[in-house]
Amino acid sequence: MDTMAAAIFDGALRYANDIPIPEPKPGWARIRVRLAGICKTDMEIIRGYKGFKGILGHEFVGHVDRCDNPAWTGRRVVGEINAACGTCGWCAQGLGRHCPDRTTLGIDRLDGCMAEFCVIPAENLFAVPEEITDERAVLIEPLAAACEILEQLPLRGTERVVVLGDGRLGILCAWVLATAAAEVTLLGRHPEKLARAPWRGIRTAVNPRDVKPGADIVVEATGSGQGIVEAMGLCRPRGTIVLKSTVAIPGKVNLVPIVVNEQTILGSRCGRFGDGLAMMRRFPDMPLERLVACRYPLERVEEAFARAREGDALKILLEMAP
Amino acid sequence: MDTMAAAIFDGALRYANDIPIPEPKPGWARIRVRLAGICKTDMEIIRGYKGFKGILGHEFVGHVDRCDNPAWTGRRVVGEINAACGTCGWCAQGLGRHCPDRTTLGIDRLDGCMAEFCVIPAENLFAVPEEITDERAVLIEPLAAACEILEQLPLRGTERVVVLGDGRLGILCAWVLATAAAEVTLLGRHPEKLARAPWRGIRTAVNPRDVKPGADIVVEATGSGQGIVEAMGLCRPRGTIVLKSTVAIPGKVNLVPIVVNEQTILGSRCGRFGDGLAMMRRFPDMPLERLVACRYPLERVEEAFARAREGDALKILLEMAP
Repeated sequence: MDTMAAAIFDGALRYANDIPIPEPKPGWARIRVRLAGICKTDMEIIRGYKGFKGILGHEFVGHVDRCDNPAWTGRRVVGEINAACGTCGWCAQGLGRHCPDRTTLGIDRLDGCMAEFCVIPAENLFAVPEEITDERAVLIEPLAAACEILEQLPLRGTERVVVLGDGRLGILCAWVLATAAAEVTLLGRHPEKLARAPWRGIRTAVNPRDVKPGADIVVEATGSGQGIVEAMGLCRPRGTIVLKSTVAIPGKVNLVPIVVNEQTILGSRCGRFGDGLAMMRRFPDMPLERLVACRYPLERVEEAFARAREGDALKILLEMAP
Repeated sequence: MDTMAAAIFDGALRYANDIPIPEPKPGWARIRVRLAGICKTDMEIIRGYKGFKGILGHEFVGHVDRCDNPAWTGRRVVGEINAACGTCGWCAQGLGRHCPDRTTLGIDRLDGCMAEFCVIPAENLFAVPEEITDERAVLIEPLAAACEILEQLPLRGTERVVVLGDGRLGILCAWVLATAAAEVTLLGRHPEKLARAPWRGIRTAVNPRDVKPGADIVVEATGSGQGIVEAMGLCRPRGTIVLKSTVAIPGKVNLVPIVVNEQTILGSRCGRFGDGLAMMRRFPDMPLERLVACRYPLERVEEAFARAREGDALKILLEMAP
């Protein structure tokens, strides 16, 4: 049996080069991966928080190597990470990402993409247009997650928006919202991260007192309980707070101001890759490259994860062997 | 100076009959009160939670006794409780109940209606149609608060709704939603309170396990932190949780499921009296009388509050001297 290299988590993170190359099931595609991104979720997995064991990784760009639909073979693709059952009510509505029986690439019962090859359902694939580089394409997952806000909450164009959190997701949310809102302010604690944010008139602030309250929309992308309390204070009555952080919110959250001010809290998770690719095509000047720190070859995956832990919020990429 | 009887809170609840009769300012009306309701907020005030001192009460029906607009004089009325500034941006939008400078009848810097007379802005008044009894009309405030849900969240008529909490507000929310949704279930802990709820096919349940999860809308009207956790579990992905409780939510609330399931939390407070009156006219069979326990004359206000504390969630009314 042919084998491949992969980054494995089996209680510890390790590089292995004796992993059997997976065979795609009917309707699935096998991808020869070119680049894979390291995400915060991967960092949580290697701390054992998710109970996942197997090949890590869910952010990739690569070429279709084998698929029972020949139209896909050889195409450069990205792929949505949830493998839905395809038959339940959510799947029938095209909302497979809410399918209760879904498995998730590199996160939940499905081997991931930090490997020479991975397999996913062919219906999850999106062809990457020629003009989008690998380095931009591999950011599709967090960009789509930011685009999800516009899918859930269509804007009129007159809105004043505040984004809390200067990590990658916060910056991507600010960029996406800056394409549709009148004014976007990014509030963060790290001047060196905020320095990456300016685009299309985005303002940045380190001190909450420098942000005018009464925003129409506040996006909570800090990942901390303080974020939501701050969001309630910065949002206008009847405004919307978009919750983007999926890490646990610690401590006591007093939601009384939500009721008194009739604010809406909108939970928002991952998005449609098609929307993210459309955003990349429409805004080729969106400075996605600023979010990428460097590339490591797959065999240096432990070093790459150590670098990712440094917390400057820059994306670390893994290159598969050619 | 003429004096009147009133229920006062000045550190303690007491009846007084030497209170000067208030004079209405220009644009305000003086009401001769017939009935006033005791509300949970009043109970909080007499425990000192709100910092209010003065005449209690914000739920009333009465007749206009004096007003510079003669069209109002002598009419039977109810009145909205927030006295807005009338000039800010919120007031200009007709959303005076979000005016940052508002005072509130019997709650915040404005003497209330547990008195022979009270004064409020004439623009807050609503004439009560002939066919609505005093006893129904005095329930306008909590009914309007329930109607606010439909104003914020228009229904298609196909929705499955779960209401948590069998207090007055929970039952009123169930009734209002039963006029517009396909199915309403009221989940409460008290069989004797739930027994008041059935109307237009409303189902009741004491055990959460008897409620099918996956509801489109869950209304949290329990006033406890457990309510919101239960609501997240009963609501479908992309569904809406309406927060109606304004008492503090104790303890730790983990909002991660909101993000993962892309649920919306909608804060909802008081509503438009016009909507409540329209609801009363449209549904004369809505069994509002079931929520009224009994009437006390104003001088027995301490006894009335003691009865209200018994916790059976029935409305206690105060009758002013004729």
